Amino acid sequence: SDDESLSPWKWIWDVWKFAQEDTNRVTFSLKVGLACLLVSLLILFRAPYQVFGVNIIWSILTVAIMFEYTVGATFNRGFNRALGSLLAGIIAIVVIQVAMSTGRFAEPYVIGLSIFVIGALTSFMKLWPSLVPYEYGFRVILFTYCLIVVSGYRMGNPIRTAMDRLYSIAIGGLLAVLVNVLIFPIWAGEQLHKELVKTFTCVADSLEECVKKYLSDDGSNRPEFAKAVMDEFSDEPAFRKCKAALNSSTKFDSLANSAKWEPPHGRFKHFFYPWEEYVKVGAVLRHCAYEVMALHGCLHSEIQAPYNLRCTFQSEILDATNKAAELLRSLGKDVSNMKHSLQTTLLKRVHSSIVRLQRSIDMHSYLLTSNHDYHDCPAKPAAKPLKTLSFNPKDFSDCLTEPDANKVEPNTPLTMAVQAESYHETMKKQQRRLHSWPSREVDDFEEDGAIDAELIPRMRALESTTALSLSTFTSLLIEFVARLDHLVEAVDKLAKMANFKQECTS
Amino acid sequence: SDDESLSPWKWIWDVWKFAQEDTNRVTFSLKVGLACLLVSLLILFRAPYQVFGVNIIWSILTVAIMFEYTVGATFNRGFNRALGSLLAGIIAIVVIQVAMSTGRFAEPYVIGLSIFVIGALTSFMKLWPSLVPYEYGFRVILFTYCLIVVSGYRMGNPIRTAMDRLYSIAIGGLLAVLVNVLIFPIWAGEQLHKELVKTFTCVADSLEECVKKYLSDDGSNRPEFAKAVMDEFSDEPAFRKCKAALNSSTKFDSLANSAKWEPPHGRFKHFFYPWEEYVKVGAVLRHCAYEVMALHGCLHSEIQAPYNLRCTFQSEILDATNKAAELLRSLGKDVSNMKHSLQTTLLKRVHSSIVRLQRSIDMHSYLLTSNHDYHDCPAKPAAKPLKTLSFNPKDFSDCLTEPDANKVEPNTPLTMAVQAESYHETMKKQQRRLHSWPSREVDDFEEDGAIDAELIPRMRALESTTALSLSTFTSLLIEFVARLDHLVEAVDKLAKMANFKQECTS
Repeated sequence: SDDESLSPWKWIWDVWKFAQEDTNRVTFSLKVGLACLLVSLLILFRAPYQVFGVNIIWSILTVAIMFEYTVGATFNRGFNRALGSLLAGIIAIVVIQVAMSTGRFAEPYVIGLSIFVIGALTSFMKLWPSLVPYEYGFRVILFTYCLIVVSGYRMGNPIRTAMDRLYSIAIGGLLAVLVNVLIFPIWAGEQLHKELVKTFTCVADSLEECVKKYLSDDGSNRPEFAKAVMDEFSDEPAFRKCKAALNSSTKFDSLANSAKWEPPHGRFKHFFYPWEEYVKVGAVLRHCAYEVMALHGCLHSEIQAPYNLRCTFQSEILDATNKAAELLRSLGKDVSNMKHSLQTTLLKRVHSSIVRLQRSIDMHSYLLTSNHDYHDCPAKPAAKPLKTLSFNPKDFSDCLTEPDANKVEPNTPLTMAVQAESYHETMKKQQRRLHSWPSREVDDFEEDGAIDAELIPRMRALESTTALSLSTFTSLLIEFVARLDHLVEAVDKLAKMANFKQECTS
Repeated sequence: SDDESLSPWKWIWDVWKFAQEDTNRVTFSLKVGLACLLVSLLILFRAPYQVFGVNIIWSILTVAIMFEYTVGATFNRGFNRALGSLLAGIIAIVVIQVAMSTGRFAEPYVIGLSIFVIGALTSFMKLWPSLVPYEYGFRVILFTYCLIVVSGYRMGNPIRTAMDRLYSIAIGGLLAVLVNVLIFPIWAGEQLHKELVKTFTCVADSLEECVKKYLSDDGSNRPEFAKAVMDEFSDEPAFRKCKAALNSSTKFDSLANSAKWEPPHGRFKHFFYPWEEYVKVGAVLRHCAYEVMALHGCLHSEIQAPYNLRCTFQSEILDATNKAAELLRSLGKDVSNMKHSLQTTLLKRVHSSIVRLQRSIDMHSYLLTSNHDYHDCPAKPAAKPLKTLSFNPKDFSDCLTEPDANKVEPNTPLTMAVQAESYHETMKKQQRRLHSWPSREVDDFEEDGAIDAELIPRMRALESTTALSLSTFTSLLIEFVARLDHLVEAVDKLAKMANFKQECTS
C-alpha cells in the first residue's frame, strides 16, 4: 500500500516533467481554455446573445474544433471551415430555391435527393489523393449543408438561418485565430526548424553510437535473437531516436504544410519563406539515415567480422566517423543559427579520412579474403593472417591450451593436422555462436556423416564471409560519407533560398 | 482548344479508374449519402421532429462526423463520441448544480471558470502520448460541455437539453453504425490482411527488380546525381512501392487499432483474432525491407563494382535472389489463403543457394582485393585479374586502341609503363564517372602537380573499394536471407495464433 500511496505523486511528477519538457504544451492548454472562456462570454453576457440568438452556440463549436496546436494549422483548419461553410451555404441556398420552385409536394424529395448526392460526392472527393489534406473541409461542407437545408425546411427562412450561422462561425473562427496568434503563438515554422536541427543531431549521434558499439563488440555479450528482430536495445537510445526520425516524414510534411499558412514571424522574416526546402533537406537526411540503418543492421547481423579484424581498422573507422559526425553537427548548427558557412574544410577532412580508410583496407585486403591465399602463396607476410584472421583470441587461446595440442612439437605434420582440426572446431563453434542462420542445416550435415567432405569448404566460405562483413561495414560507411555531399548541397540551397547570414569562417 | 475540350473526358476517365481501382470507395460514398439521407428523414418527416424538437439536428452532425471508412474506425469513433458526450454531460450536470447553489450572482463566474479549466485540461490531456488516439474524444468532451453548460445557462432546464442532445447523438450514432455494418461493410481487418499480403509481394518484387538492375547495369546509362538523392527512378516501380511500404507502419497500426473493435466477420471467425500479430509480421517484413533499401543504395551508390566482376557471380546472386523471392511470395500466399504450411523446403533451398554464393565468393575472393597481390605473388592464376578486375571492357579496349600503346612491342619496360599510365588514366576516367564524391579533391590534387605521388596509391585504394562494393552487395543479400528466418518464424506464430488451416505440403 506504500507503493500505491506513492503512485499519485509519481503520476504528478510525470505530468510535471511532461509539461516542463516542452512548456508550449501548457501554453497551448491555457490558450484553449481562454478561447473557450471568451467565446462563452458571448452567451453568458446578455447583449451579444440577444443580437445573434440561438445560433451563437455555433461559435463555441467552431472554437473547439478549429483551435490547433500551431498557428499555421489553425489558419489551415480555419480556411477549411470557412470555405466549407461558404460552399455549403451557397449550395444550400441554390438547392432550396430549386426545391421551393418545384412546389410543396416535391420539396422534401428534392431535399432528400440533394442530401444523398452531397453526402456521396463529398465522401468520394475526400478519398482522392490530392484532396486528402482537405478531408476536414469536406466534412464541414456535408454537415453544414445538411443542417442548413434540413433546419431551413423545418424552421423556415433558411437564408436567415444560414447567415446567422455563418456569422457565428466567423466570430468563433476569428476568436480562435486571434487568441492563437496574439497570445504566445506557437509557430509551425519554428517547430519545423527545430525538428530539422534535431534530426541532424539524431543522425550524428546514432552514427557514432553504432560505430562505437561495432568496434567495442568482442562478441562476448551478444543479445538474443528475438530481440534483434525488433531492433530494440536498451543501450542504443540514439538509434531509437534515429529510427523515429525515419518515420517522421509525415510530421515534416504536415508542419511544412502548416508553416506555409503562417505570416512572416520571428526569425523567418520574409514572405514565401522556403519551407519546402526544409522538407527536402529532411529527405536527404533520411537518405543518409538509411545508411545508418544499414550500418546498424551490420552491427546486429548474425554474420560478424572477428574482433581482431575490426581492431585493425579501428583508428581509421573511428576517425572517419568522428569527422562525418562533426560535419553533420556543424551543418545542424548552421541551420539552427541560420548561418550560411561553406563547409569545404570539414568536407575535405571527411573525404581525406575516408581515403585513409580506403587505403588501409587496400593495404590489408589480404586479411579480408580467406586464408587459402596464405597457403597458396607463402611469399606474403605470414605472421599476420593467423593472428588476425577469422577467430577471436579467446577461441584461439582455448585451442592452444588444449593439453593434446600443447604436448606435440610445433611444425610437424601432426601438429598441423591437429591445429587444422581444432581450427575448424573453433570455426564451427564460432559459426554456431555468430551465424545462427544456417544452424538447422549444419545439424543436418552433422547427422549425415559427410562432415569432413562437406563442412570444411563450407567453413572456408563462411570464414571468408565473416571477414567480408567488415568490408561491408566500411563500404556502408563510405557510402554514408558520399551521401553527405548531397546533404551539404541541400543545406547550401536552403541557406541561399532562405537568405541565411553569409559567413566565410571555413 | 482541342486539348481543353478533351481534358474533362480525361478527368472523368481518371475518376472512373480511381473508382474501379477499389470499388469500396464508391460503396463508402454511397453509404455516407444513404446515412445522411436517413438521418435527414427524421427531420423531414413531421413525427420524429415533434418528439425530439430542435435538438434532433445533433444526429445529423453525429452521422457526418462519425461515419468512417471502415467498420472498426466507425466503432472507435462512435466510442469516443459516446464516452466523450457522456463524460461531458456528467461533468456539466455536476458543475451546473454547484453553480446554481452558489447563487444567481456567482453563477456566471463559476461557469466561466469551469469552461476555462475543462478547456485547458482536455487540451493538455490530448497531448499526452498514450491519449493521442483519443484526441477526438477530448474534443467532443470540450465542445459538448461548453454547449450544455452555456445553452443551459441561457435557455434554462440544462438537464433536459443535455438529455435531448444525448438522445439525438445516440440516434445519429446508431444510424451511422447500422448503415456502416449492414450495407456492404468495409472491414478494417480485411484491409489489414490484404495490406500485409501486398507488402510481401512488394518486398519480393523490389528485391528482384533491384538485383536484376544491378546485374544488368554496365555503367553505360547511369542517371544523374540529383535524381539519386530523391530515390526516384521511373524504371523502378516496385522500389517505389517498397518504399511506400516502409512508411506504412502508421497505416498498419491504425488498421490493427480499428480491427480490434470489429466483431468476428467473414474469414476471421474467432473472437480476439490476433490482429497485433499482423503488425508484428509487418514489422519483421519492414526489417527485411530495410535490407532491400540498402541493396538499392548499393545499386545507386557512387562506388560501383565493375560490370565484369558482377557477371562472375551473376548466376549465384540470381539464384539466391529468386529463391528468396519465391519464399517471400509463398509466405505471402500462405497468409493470403490463411493456410499454415511449413516452409522448410523452400527455406533450405534459399540457404543452400546462399551457401553456394558464399563458396563462390570465397573461391574468387582474390578478385575482390586489389591487384598488387597479383604483382607481389605471381604464383596465382594470372589471366583472370587483368580481365575481370576493376574496369569496364570498353575502357580497356579504349586504352588498347590508343595509337601510342599499340605501336610499341609488348613486354618491354616501356610498354609496361605506358600500360600502367593508361591504366591509371582509365581508372581516373572511371573514377570521375562512377565515384563522383571525391571529384573536387582529385581536381585539387591535379592542380597541385603532385599527381603521380599522390594519385596512384589513391587509385589503388579506390580500385580495391570498387571491387569490395560487390562483396557489400552480396553481404547485404546474405543478411536479407538471414532475416527471412525471422520472417518465417513470425508468420509461423501468426498462423498458429490465428488458427490458419494446417497443411503439410512441403
